[in-house]
Amino acid sequence: MSRVNSRLSNQHAQSAAEFLRRVQEGGPLVQCLTNAVVTNFTANALLALGAAPAMVDLPTEAGPFARMASAVLINLGTPHHDQRVAMVEAATVAHAAGTPWVLDPVAVGALSVRTHLARDLLGLRPTVIRGNPSEIIALAGAGNGGRGVDSTDSVEAALAAARNLAIDVGTIVAISGATDIITDGVRDVRIDNGTVMLTRITGGGCALGAVIAAFAAQDRDRLATTVAACAIYALAAEQAAQASAGPGSFAVAFLDRLAGLTPADVLTGAVIG
Amino acid sequence: MSRVNSRLSNQHAQSAAEFLRRVQEGGPLVQCLTNAVVTNFTANALLALGAAPAMVDLPTEAGPFARMASAVLINLGTPHHDQRVAMVEAATVAHAAGTPWVLDPVAVGALSVRTHLARDLLGLRPTVIRGNPSEIIALAGAGNGGRGVDSTDSVEAALAAARNLAIDVGTIVAISGATDIITDGVRDVRIDNGTVMLTRITGGGCALGAVIAAFAAQDRDRLATTVAACAIYALAAEQAAQASAGPGSFAVAFLDRLAGLTPADVLTGAVIG
Amino acid sequence: MSRVNSRLSNQHAQSAAEFLRRVQEGGPLVQCLTNAVVTNFTANALLALGAAPAMVDLPTEAGPFARMASAVLINLGTPHHDQRVAMVEAATVAHAAGTPWVLDPVAVGALSVRTHLARDLLGLRPTVIRGNPSEIIALAGAGNGGRGVDSTDSVEAALAAARNLAIDVGTIVAISGATDIITDGVRDVRIDNGTVMLTRITGGGCALGAVIAAFAAQDRDRLATTVAACAIYALAAEQAAQASAGPGSFAVAFLDRLAGLTPADVLTGAVIG
Repeated sequence: MSRVNSRLSNQHAQSAAEFLRRVQEGGPLVQCLTNAVVTNFTANALLALGAAPAMVDLPTEAGPFARMASAVLINLGTPHHDQRVAMVEAATVAHAAGTPWVLDPVAVGALSVRTHLARDLLGLRPTVIRGNPSEIIALAGAGNGGRGVDSTDSVEAALAAARNLAIDVGTIVAISGATDIITDGVRDVRIDNGTVMLTRITGGGCALGAVIAAFAAQDRDRLATTVAACAIYALAAEQAAQASAGPGSFAVAFLDRLAGLTPADVLTGAVIG
Repeated sequence: MSRVNSRLSNQHAQSAAEFLRRVQEGGPLVQCLTNAVVTNFTANALLALGAAPAMVDLPTEAGPFARMASAVLINLGTPHHDQRVAMVEAATVAHAAGTPWVLDPVAVGALSVRTHLARDLLGLRPTVIRGNPSEIIALAGAGNGGRGVDSTDSVEAALAAARNLAIDVGTIVAISGATDIITDGVRDVRIDNGTVMLTRITGGGCALGAVIAAFAAQDRDRLATTVAACAIYALAAEQAAQASAGPGSFAVAFLDRLAGLTPADVLTGAVIG
Repeated sequence: MSRVNSRLSNQHAQSAAEFLRRVQEGGPLVQCLTNAVVTNFTANALLALGAAPAMVDLPTEAGPFARMASAVLINLGTPHHDQRVAMVEAATVAHAAGTPWVLDPVAVGALSVRTHLARDLLGLRPTVIRGNPSEIIALAGAGNGGRGVDSTDSVEAALAAARNLAIDVGTIVAISGATDIITDGVRDVRIDNGTVMLTRITGGGCALGAVIAAFAAQDRDRLATTVAACAIYALAAEQAAQASAGPGSFAVAFLDRLAGLTPADVLTGAVIG
């Protein structure tokens, strides 16, 4: 994983270290409207980083809370009826109030209810969109989605769709894979940290969406904050995998590592280019 | 954490040890109507202690089940519509049938739906109320709640509100914090076991509500059973924290310790005054 | 746990080893409509084995997905209204399309909503039914269910009911307990691997239902695939328990072991007769 860092990548690592420090010290309040499978893991990942999760996804509560939250995550994994209402409510308020919000379009393209919902939510201009390659391609209108929650496309194959989506919506798009790519439609940043173990536990991608939201509250340069979130998340995972005997112990070590990672660790370990 | 135990605290520790023995041997059936984030951890905490969790929260099932359950937990963390109906049903039956039931007013004051629900549920006379300081203050009508699920008030600052609430409702109130305080409105008992790690995992407080319910089924002296539940829970957490490398391994060690704790451990380790 | 394996048990172990290889290599897509308590653990158990979980339980999405899934699990642990609609939809499509599907009738008999639902679902001919003894007896119409989610009957006491149910519905019935029994109504197979630890964590039985579904997609001999799933699951649990200090570390070690178990381990470790 070693690489000669360019000056640019050094800048990315330095801002990532700085944003980590801010999250740890500031404890951003992250409202999560997320799926039933990963809600516990997502809350624990945020807590490990020092952020404060609030799983507020009831109609009439979700909107007002989006005004006081530092950031909002909307994840379409299991969007039952009331949660869909709350999602539109929260995104509407976040958009109006300037609260950064992240859209994770789980299984969009492959499944109908969430595909329609995702299209509606795009109109409320998510600050960041995070997905696997098939989800990004489908959301950009260029494909039919993957196999359930799994991608059937590669990260590089989704890059053109990601750039188009970023420009059309005016957002940052993060494509998750062996190498993550984050793009604003013009600039692309690659992150080479990570581990295949993140695909052997549920919520490996979903919790990243929440972390991206926590970081989006730290600075208005959302390309930089998203790169920071993805790099720190992947670095903690990479280090946890080295100390694990399988996916069960990996999930435990990952939360420990998210909690233990320091800004100095980011400077030495992040592989961003 | 050492302290010269008064005779009173010795009595508390002795009854705590005895109630733990009864829970381990009797396996109380604890019906939980709780939030989506912590339902797994809550069930595992109960199982670790030897209790039998039953997450029965459907309308028309929740009421009849509250008659056969040893105790009921109602936690307002994510109270979607059907669960709210089931909560009122279960509390109504529990109240009528004499089944002890615990109210955990998560984020009351800060969020509207659950605030109204909590006020309704107070009329059905919870046996015990457990919350963080801001929740207790808000439930007593003296404040506007905390920051999402986090408290913005100290335990001692909530004591007057807790006493009033205990007397008005005719209940026991447990305020969770660095030092827990349990009060019946006249007598206050403090527990000095614990660890900050309980605030770095999700469900650290919510699972305690379920444990309080399990213990409430062991004796009609609910001040004593609640003190026992809080002390045993905090003691297991304190010991687990010493064996942990971060919040991930803490949660694992905590379940192990809840399962391994003996009545003798309680006698030597509980710090109650 | 040693036993002189008969030729028959050797055949079972050999087919179990072969089906494990197919699951690990093929990555079956398992649609789970399951309860809120265990959804995370279930997804992680499937991922550990190399299967691909998809928790698709929304009306209008669940039916179409059941056509593309390798297998479907329907678990009645917390069947709220919309999920019940989705369950009937998914089972109807699975039945029509020939997708194997597993019914886990959690707490049937003891609770009304799911009891009616289970009776309806039997008409859609589940490929396999998995439950504890009290659930199987209740589903066969011969008893009133257990104590919440716990069985109050022994596995052997449920065998007659299981055989009747298997013949009436034309299905395989797996009864979980200290010794698992799998029957097609004529042949009974017993599995003597396992550990009491599976009863000290939540989801120990529920995740098995999902694993049975994953294996049901590997061969049309569903007695053999179900025996394989139960044996592999119990063997991984047995080995994990030996490396655990309590239920918290057991759950972690179990996922590690599910991921690490090889076909050769199954040949040497499975105790099937």
